Amino acid sequence: MRNRRWIQNAAAVVLLLLVGGTGCTEGGNRTDADPLPSWKEGPAKAAILKFVAAVTDKSGEDYVKPVERIAVFDNDGTLWVEHPMYTQLVFAFDRVKELAPQHPEWKTQQPFKALLEGDMKTVGASGMKGLMEIVMASHSGVTAAEFAKTVSNWLATHEQPRFKRPYTECVYQPQLELLAYLRANGFKTFIVSGGGIQFMRPWAEKVYGVPPEQVIGSSIKTRFVMQGDQARLVRLPEIDFIDDKDGKPVGIHKFIGRKPILAFGNSDGDLQMLQYTDTGAGPRLMLLLHHDDGEREYAYDRETHVGRLDKALDEANRRKWVVVSMKNDFRTVFAPQAK
Amino acid sequence: MRNRRWIQNAAAVVLLLLVGGTGCTEGGNRTDADPLPSWKEGPAKAAILKFVAAVTDKSGEDYVKPVERIAVFDNDGTLWVEHPMYTQLVFAFDRVKELAPQHPEWKTQQPFKALLEGDMKTVGASGMKGLMEIVMASHSGVTAAEFAKTVSNWLATHEQPRFKRPYTECVYQPQLELLAYLRANGFKTFIVSGGGIQFMRPWAEKVYGVPPEQVIGSSIKTRFVMQGDQARLVRLPEIDFIDDKDGKPVGIHKFIGRKPILAFGNSDGDLQMLQYTDTGAGPRLMLLLHHDDGEREYAYDRETHVGRLDKALDEANRRKWVVVSMKNDFRTVFAPQAK
Repeated sequence: MRNRRWIQNAAAVVLLLLVGGTGCTEGGNRTDADPLPSWKEGPAKAAILKFVAAVTDKSGEDYVKPVERIAVFDNDGTLWVEHPMYTQLVFAFDRVKELAPQHPEWKTQQPFKALLEGDMKTVGASGMKGLMEIVMASHSGVTAAEFAKTVSNWLATHEQPRFKRPYTECVYQPQLELLAYLRANGFKTFIVSGGGIQFMRPWAEKVYGVPPEQVIGSSIKTRFVMQGDQARLVRLPEIDFIDDKDGKPVGIHKFIGRKPILAFGNSDGDLQMLQYTDTGAGPRLMLLLHHDDGEREYAYDRETHVGRLDKALDEANRRKWVVVSMKNDFRTVFAPQAK
Repeated sequence: MRNRRWIQNAAAVVLLLLVGGTGCTEGGNRTDADPLPSWKEGPAKAAILKFVAAVTDKSGEDYVKPVERIAVFDNDGTLWVEHPMYTQLVFAFDRVKELAPQHPEWKTQQPFKALLEGDMKTVGASGMKGLMEIVMASHSGVTAAEFAKTVSNWLATHEQPRFKRPYTECVYQPQLELLAYLRANGFKTFIVSGGGIQFMRPWAEKVYGVPPEQVIGSSIKTRFVMQGDQARLVRLPEIDFIDDKDGKPVGIHKFIGRKPILAFGNSDGDLQMLQYTDTGAGPRLMLLLHHDDGEREYAYDRETHVGRLDKALDEANRRKWVVVSMKNDFRTVFAPQAK
């Protein structure tokens, strides 16, 4: 045993001697390859590279310890496509149709009646209250484990209407590279979304490399029940937490308990998360994705209902946050199709 | 640049040649040293070692991928001393006395009046409702950042009454070793406590090696406010979540979103967390710390108010969970004093 340890130590010394004096930095695995090939050269990419270099430079005054390298990303419109409609809402509508035979009362009860009849104008007119009723009815009444399976099955069998590929392949390639680049530099990456926490967790690890415990979102309540010796969590039609707008910094404090040093959003729903990240000493980077590419994706900002970007855009200009143009900063938008 | 890469590759080859054939396992840093020296040899220690060996053995049928190696620990009575009174309650009582000059109404309002007069019998008689009022009054009305400082200052200046050392040094040495051992084997360690999440986070990283985002606990609500360009979170006197009993599996699902494969508790407040962990396929380990060592710590189980262990003990015996005896399984209880 002593012998093996000695050999390892000797090998380490040989390694150090061989690489010594070559200017190799900590970790020794730096390469000259571009870590963000799907980002075009420009101010956004430069700001990201400069920020990461600064917070990881142990001898610099902007060095940040790895445990404090918290990066938070919105999901809808920041990591994946949110137009023409939030994916979770498409799922909720489908689910209501699927569950309708078990709910004869929906035939006469709004907004379910309108939804089942395809009268989307009336559904829309039911406003946030109506949509919440649809979301709750379609997301509750099952165990947590069953719901996760339902989400996975639905995503595996439905496509985004314009791009004709699964929703989980309508994720932005430059953002996948950014997530991986941050993690390679000691960051812990979190999703902080207004969307449902249990709607994202079943696939966020595979698609984004973000494990369930680093996904924060809106939630309904669950109740613990024992069935014999088996413990179950049953989903209730009752709001637990809305992780949007003012709720995002509240959610970050609740789930992470540490202020991020990097935040990336795309809409007014992310404004408070960016303001929160921008408060405090030390280096911090705030970014907003601007959907200005109707050709390759969608073009919208101040005049849209889904993912409206208005106040946050003004605030970004005033506070010198980085506005990322999909048109000018993304070399590619989506990864090549898997199939 | 090419040259440097070549030298690194060559060095890696040399390293591989040197250590090759020595029987060195993955990672190469396994030693024969006992990872749990403060645990006595016995069934509890054997069960832990066997479990960790099984879930990390890639060729075995009980192998568990690192991302799924989630371990959850209760805090009060499992990681640190909870007798004669929960530390957070001692803090709350002190805080009420400190804040009293700003609250003249407390002179006539129960349970504050009794607490300020030292009439602990009346305070106790106010029950859970009275205690919650004290906790909320003493934990709210400040920003999140101010509260964290208050907690740190209080812990730095107060001692556990029997052991005459800071509360944060009244943590169990065998458990510190277990936390470190699990992490060294790819586990992610979480605290899941009935205590206040923001009462634990300021020190859990330093004391337990558990970062804030892996601390789950009870909470009060916070509100986001802007003061000029500065974002603040203000703590409100309103319950957000009680992470105890039925709330523990609910909290695990909410914060982690993945079922633990190891859970360690010490009281009936941990029963549901253990039942939840014990539900499902694959290897899982449930442990209960039994405080049976009045000489070195405290002896209590079915007849105590603080950390009562009754139903969970019966359930542990019935379901073959591991009951850890402080007296027989802990070689040492506390780490040597730092000062």
